[in-house]
Amino acid sequence: MDSAFPDVQGPQIEEVLGDTVTVRQPIFDRHGRPGGTVSGPVMMMLADTAAWMAILAQIGPVLLAVTTSLHIDFLRKPEMADLVARGTVLKLGRTLAVVDVAIYSKGRDEMVAKAQVTYAIPSATPAPADGA
Amino acid sequence: MDSAFPDVQGPQIEEVLGDTVTVRQPIFDRHGRPGGTVSGPVMMMLADTAAWMAILAQIGPVLLAVTTSLHIDFLRKPEMADLVARGTVLKLGRTLAVVDVAIYSKGRDEMVAKAQVTYAIPSATPAPADGA
Amino acid sequence: MDSAFPDVQGPQIEEVLGDTVTVRQPIFDRHGRPGGTVSGPVMMMLADTAAWMAILAQIGPVLLAVTTSLHIDFLRKPEMADLVARGTVLKLGRTLAVVDVAIYSKGRDEMVAKAQVTYAIPSATPAPADGA
Amino acid sequence: MDSAFPDVQGPQIEEVLGDTVTVRQPIFDRHGRPGGTVSGPVMMMLADTAAWMAILAQIGPVLLAVTTSLHIDFLRKPEMADLVARGTVLKLGRTLAVVDVAIYSKGRDEMVAKAQVTYAIPSATPAPADGA
Repeated sequence: MDSAFPDVQGPQIEEVLGDTVTVRQPIFDRHGRPGGTVSGPVMMMLADTAAWMAILAQIGPVLLAVTTSLHIDFLRKPEMADLVARGTVLKLGRTLAVVDVAIYSKGRDEMVAKAQVTYAIPSATPAPADGA
Repeated sequence: MDSAFPDVQGPQIEEVLGDTVTVRQPIFDRHGRPGGTVSGPVMMMLADTAAWMAILAQIGPVLLAVTTSLHIDFLRKPEMADLVARGTVLKLGRTLAVVDVAIYSKGRDEMVAKAQVTYAIPSATPAPADGA
Repeated sequence: MDSAFPDVQGPQIEEVLGDTVTVRQPIFDRHGRPGGTVSGPVMMMLADTAAWMAILAQIGPVLLAVTTSLHIDFLRKPEMADLVARGTVLKLGRTLAVVDVAIYSKGRDEMVAKAQVTYAIPSATPAPADGA
Repeated sequence: MDSAFPDVQGPQIEEVLGDTVTVRQPIFDRHGRPGGTVSGPVMMMLADTAAWMAILAQIGPVLLAVTTSLHIDFLRKPEMADLVARGTVLKLGRTLAVVDVAIYSKGRDEMVAKAQVTYAIPSATPAPADGA
């Protein structure tokens, strides 16, 4: 996966545990918004990336998986600190994968954003028995 | 809450634990679809109700809370059996509450649907310190 | 489609025009909520049905199409009057169809709810050239 | 608005017409993905920005409006060309605004992405008569 995310300032996988991947996004000044909070698009990008990494952790490097939909609720304004996203694969079907993503500020308990992300899996991918 | 849901065939609260409410929806023939599965609208209604019950479990009987948005991903076709929804309050702000809802077939481990539901809280409600 | 919706009290197609289907949902007392408004689940069911009808108007009676996700924003409380939904097919791919649905109270201009609905198309369906 | 978006490479308002704002996002190599398509996060950022600009066109420069939720369906892979987003305000309430956003490749008819975005309006904002 390094070749797809060579940027050391990009999201880094911290842990893979069962269906869940934990990803850390380093936060720099350029990610900020007035009022000292991380911008919404940074959290959307992280939700999308964490979902993709969670799927790849299950089925291997299918770089051509593409996002078909993303829903995100912004819950609290995160301070300017690294973000941690936990992506859990809810469904891994023949053509669709659905991932739940919870985003936190590093070291804090309160969730700052919550997403549900759907990816289309290219048809060449070996098919599990169930689902669409 | 009984007065709002007098129907014994309606959703029943099974447990309240911290921020999470567990609700059971009895399933009858009229809830079915060809192929022996529960209809999508029944799951959407359950997601909406479980979110409402999760909020009421936190702030008391604010019957005028109204749904402002609902997002649901359908993951697997549930068999014709009772459904169990677990609603967890992610945010309880002055004007908005966001609830995560996971739906299962009674007695089975695989999630059949996953929702994120937002309610508007009437302004007379006592306000917590944080958030919008 | 009559065989799938035999109920004369159910949603009725009023018009098919290009990619757009207009569906009317008769509203009765049982659809109401305290305060004289139509319940949210009725609008969700209508959004789901209008999306399905919009897809069928394009590809014929594929009864096995199933909803994979539904997002709805509730905009205004509709009075107790028939609802009209306008479903427009935004994408009709090999495996997924996405439909935009706008819901109004019959004879009024203001939108009461807005949805985006995704259906999975069974693989036996003849495939258009593009998209997933 | 210039002070908030000083970047000439950022999104530019092309037209304001009634409830609808048209915004153009210049696309450069850094916005691309393998296969010659624009990245999903660029479209999410554009949807968020176009929604914000549509609200500001109605109520003036309320810079503190914050996104509370965003739902986006990706419909087709856009080529590497400027994107055009059309944001239409569906509801402008006392505390919430909901905006529909359609995204196209410049000069082409087919929609590439469709979003529904909700913003919270700071309470100091003059209140319209209706809605939450």
